[in-house]
Amino acid sequence: MFRYQRRIHFAETDLAGIAHFANVFRYMEEAEHALWRAAGMSIDGAEADVKWPRVAAAFDYRRPLRFEDEFVVEVAITAVSPRTIRYGHTIRRGDTIIGSGSIVAACVRRTIDGELQAVEIPAAILERLHAAAAG
Amino acid sequence: MFRYQRRIHFAETDLAGIAHFANVFRYMEEAEHALWRAAGMSIDGAEADVKWPRVAAAFDYRRPLRFEDEFVVEVAITAVSPRTIRYGHTIRRGDTIIGSGSIVAACVRRTIDGELQAVEIPAAILERLHAAAAG
Amino acid sequence: MFRYQRRIHFAETDLAGIAHFANVFRYMEEAEHALWRAAGMSIDGAEADVKWPRVAAAFDYRRPLRFEDEFVVEVAITAVSPRTIRYGHTIRRGDTIIGSGSIVAACVRRTIDGELQAVEIPAAILERLHAAAAG
Amino acid sequence: MFRYQRRIHFAETDLAGIAHFANVFRYMEEAEHALWRAAGMSIDGAEADVKWPRVAAAFDYRRPLRFEDEFVVEVAITAVSPRTIRYGHTIRRGDTIIGSGSIVAACVRRTIDGELQAVEIPAAILERLHAAAAG
Repeated sequence: MFRYQRRIHFAETDLAGIAHFANVFRYMEEAEHALWRAAGMSIDGAEADVKWPRVAAAFDYRRPLRFEDEFVVEVAITAVSPRTIRYGHTIRRGDTIIGSGSIVAACVRRTIDGELQAVEIPAAILERLHAAAAG
Repeated sequence: MFRYQRRIHFAETDLAGIAHFANVFRYMEEAEHALWRAAGMSIDGAEADVKWPRVAAAFDYRRPLRFEDEFVVEVAITAVSPRTIRYGHTIRRGDTIIGSGSIVAACVRRTIDGELQAVEIPAAILERLHAAAAG
Repeated sequence: MFRYQRRIHFAETDLAGIAHFANVFRYMEEAEHALWRAAGMSIDGAEADVKWPRVAAAFDYRRPLRFEDEFVVEVAITAVSPRTIRYGHTIRRGDTIIGSGSIVAACVRRTIDGELQAVEIPAAILERLHAAAAG
Repeated sequence: MFRYQRRIHFAETDLAGIAHFANVFRYMEEAEHALWRAAGMSIDGAEADVKWPRVAAAFDYRRPLRFEDEFVVEVAITAVSPRTIRYGHTIRRGDTIIGSGSIVAACVRRTIDGELQAVEIPAAILERLHAAAAG
């Protein structure tokens, strides 16, 4: 499990006085990208020439986050198929669970025609992510 | 089923050249709020003094949206419990299905202490939403 | 002067109950891109193979915009140099002036090395924009 | 001069492969709010019961920021009138100047009618901000 720390910015709040619900998907992605960096890679890097479009995203909300709240996004690799990775996330503010969710990303490569094609996840990438997620 | 039309703005794209995945949750919410307006109400209005925080949100992505793409968000009320409404969404660009998802919103009222408390959905609100969603 | 119409979305408001100030720069850009479309072009299109990074942006705020407010962004070409266009914007909600601002965009082409280089604005583009802006 | 550090997130990039220009206004505001925290206050706190709507914002862009770029926003109080503060900002990535800009915020208080009224900046707030900005 990898931990990513963050604070709620003013522009992320809405008129209800809380962080807008759609922002959690940005926070989850930020945590995933921080995990990649911790693994010595960049999600947008030249790693094996593959890209990672999202195929599913979900979150269950238990408590709101407010302006200037400090929180942690815990991210783990919860499932791997030959061509997809599922990341599981829990957001906490101190001891309070804000909610939990998941993002599924597919491993794709651009063909000569410019089309995206799902391909097998390079073993080296998976190994490094697992190592970084194990902390 | 209610239909909300939209176009992808430049600022909504990311370096992969497509609309950032987190934006679909904004589009789904915009469609829901347009449904409320079609029902003669505002989600932030004085309607029975209740508010609608989100308790769950999910989306499955099949195709990307790109800059200036015109698309439609179809929104329907797919489930109702005494204190929650589930909206189901399908996003289409012409005949192409972009993906589908859902948002669950809880009906809450602020107590004298300022706390949010789940309350039963006022029947009049539900009636008007159902009528608007039936088109 | 070209007019672009818009409504404030929930996610664009902040805890002060108004549209977050940074969003006006998105609205100004949306109006500019709508002007390009009205001129039969796309700012991201193949038009003469040039791109338009922003070199300056400014806005003076007089009144706030709130959730579901309908407003108009008026955009005009207020200055042209060989390699830049200055767009001037006024935002109105009905008869109320919300504020006014400007964006300066440079005309650039990618060199063989991948660097961006300022180039002269193709005359055909300018002509079409002027015609569309004249309404 | 106060320094605020930040990294570009994926969702902040656009199809041109750079951070969308409107985001700099968020970064400038984040730096300002970090300055308030360094001064032991919150811009949304109970400090003298005043609020700080923006009346002007501007930025001149010299270089783009890209995904995962680390950068610093330097913020200083560059002018004070009885009822407004002007913050001046310079954004740097290492030794490279990305650009510079400013935000003018007005000091307002809500009247009994709910209207916002410009009021004199409480001396204690200004003192603490100046001390924090002096580093």
